[in-house]
Amino acid sequence: MIRVVKIGGNVVDNPELLKKFVEDFAQMPGMKILVHGGGVMASQMQKSMGMVPQMIEGRRVTDEETLRVVTMVYAGWCNKNITALLQAQGCNAIGLTGADGNAIKARKRPPVHVESLNQEVDYGFVGDVSAESVNAKFIYSLLEKGIVPVFNAINHDGEGNLLNTNADTIASSVATAMANYQYRTRRDVCCRCEECTHCSDDGRLTHIVELLYCFEKDGVLYDKDDDSSVIPEIDREKFAQLKGEGRVADGMIPKLTNSFKAIDNGVKRVVIKHASNLLNPLGTILK
Amino acid sequence: MIRVVKIGGNVVDNPELLKKFVEDFAQMPGMKILVHGGGVMASQMQKSMGMVPQMIEGRRVTDEETLRVVTMVYAGWCNKNITALLQAQGCNAIGLTGADGNAIKARKRPPVHVESLNQEVDYGFVGDVSAESVNAKFIYSLLEKGIVPVFNAINHDGEGNLLNTNADTIASSVATAMANYQYRTRRDVCCRCEECTHCSDDGRLTHIVELLYCFEKDGVLYDKDDDSSVIPEIDREKFAQLKGEGRVADGMIPKLTNSFKAIDNGVKRVVIKHASNLLNPLGTILK
Repeated sequence: MIRVVKIGGNVVDNPELLKKFVEDFAQMPGMKILVHGGGVMASQMQKSMGMVPQMIEGRRVTDEETLRVVTMVYAGWCNKNITALLQAQGCNAIGLTGADGNAIKARKRPPVHVESLNQEVDYGFVGDVSAESVNAKFIYSLLEKGIVPVFNAINHDGEGNLLNTNADTIASSVATAMANYQYRTRRDVCCRCEECTHCSDDGRLTHIVELLYCFEKDGVLYDKDDDSSVIPEIDREKFAQLKGEGRVADGMIPKLTNSFKAIDNGVKRVVIKHASNLLNPLGTILK
Repeated sequence: MIRVVKIGGNVVDNPELLKKFVEDFAQMPGMKILVHGGGVMASQMQKSMGMVPQMIEGRRVTDEETLRVVTMVYAGWCNKNITALLQAQGCNAIGLTGADGNAIKARKRPPVHVESLNQEVDYGFVGDVSAESVNAKFIYSLLEKGIVPVFNAINHDGEGNLLNTNADTIASSVATAMANYQYRTRRDVCCRCEECTHCSDDGRLTHIVELLYCFEKDGVLYDKDDDSSVIPEIDREKFAQLKGEGRVADGMIPKLTNSFKAIDNGVKRVVIKHASNLLNPLGTILK
């Protein structure tokens, strides 16, 4: 099994929560990949440099100066600190942007019409990624060696430009790409977990892939003001019902939509849970 | 042959020079490793954040806030831009700190007596590296795959802390480590250049390693005010003579001392040259 774990900026920015998470993540057995955000710190850094962060529908408008700041914060400070903390726990992490080893390519987003503003918005150096733009072969070559890739939200377009992308989408794209990656059977490489039995016609295997979104809540809440109202399981029908009732918060809708898309495309399970619950079964399971 | 190329902060900060260098480096055949500085940009960033860069004998005093800035600038902005530019030239680069894949460990420098100040100086989060702290096996596993490691000056201590180290020393340490790394002969892996014939007793080989320091001068100058006074070749005797005559500038002495140490420890050649002369034979050869 390959586990792809995403942590948000609120976890990265909370030293105590991050420390606990890093310890747990290092202990988690099997092949694993970490994807992290860092938006909270990026906004702080922008402000300390006299810039005004501009967010539209939850996405950062990224001009040249903002690209420099997010690259410094995500790919520099956050990514290398997390990598060093994991190394200290005996987890052989490698911090990556999409440019490194050509791991993930992104496509610069053209100006789009934003409904809430009723106008066209140019997000600047913002990119979109998909499972097709993930270099699963390279990522798998690291996993095979027991190396743990740690991705941040910076990717490249292959033409020399860095682009700011969405870490949730990176996580679901990487998970989907790994779920569809066929590897040759070698006893010393196969993770031999009981679930990985998917054979392709020519004798190659795919791994079972689980995607975990870890944040500062215990899961998807039925009542956003009641932390104990975690919904243990959501299927498509339930999702439609929750949306209809207006139960799912705005920020959660794209996460759930993306998750079901990943499941449709080969990911076995998606779990949404608190970052401090990584090693226990608490949280919301999407099926 | 493995070539280890170092470029300084003045090259990284000069878009035109960097562009030409990246194009040339991408074209350079064989196994190769890039090490870059970024000190000029780090000082600019510190100033833009209202900090005052503090340098003692050419080394940056690195308190917690400075460590954050240099990590952001070196490992974030500079490293990822160079990596993306190389990718655009078809060179499969991977940007690394020492924490990534546990590539290079550094030892925090204890407070030292600085003669020019006649006092003890605590450089803070500054580390020292040596050839022994370089993970040659990991670096070689990338080279074998045609991947080009791009190192910056940030390393880790293995206990979760990042440390600011000297990029020149990283270059000579990596070159020395690779010159002493023994690999098994495999026809598809051996670079098969004519020079790599060093056999160990049990049939393993070492590569010939060349170390190139690229900066904004044409080489080691006999007269620092005359750019045409490049000394084509320096051996130990000549080096002693030049030092005696006060011909070698202060900043160049540790570079040359380090270079001769690398040669003593297995590196075949060190060349000091202009960053725009990477692919031609101009420069100063140390023997």
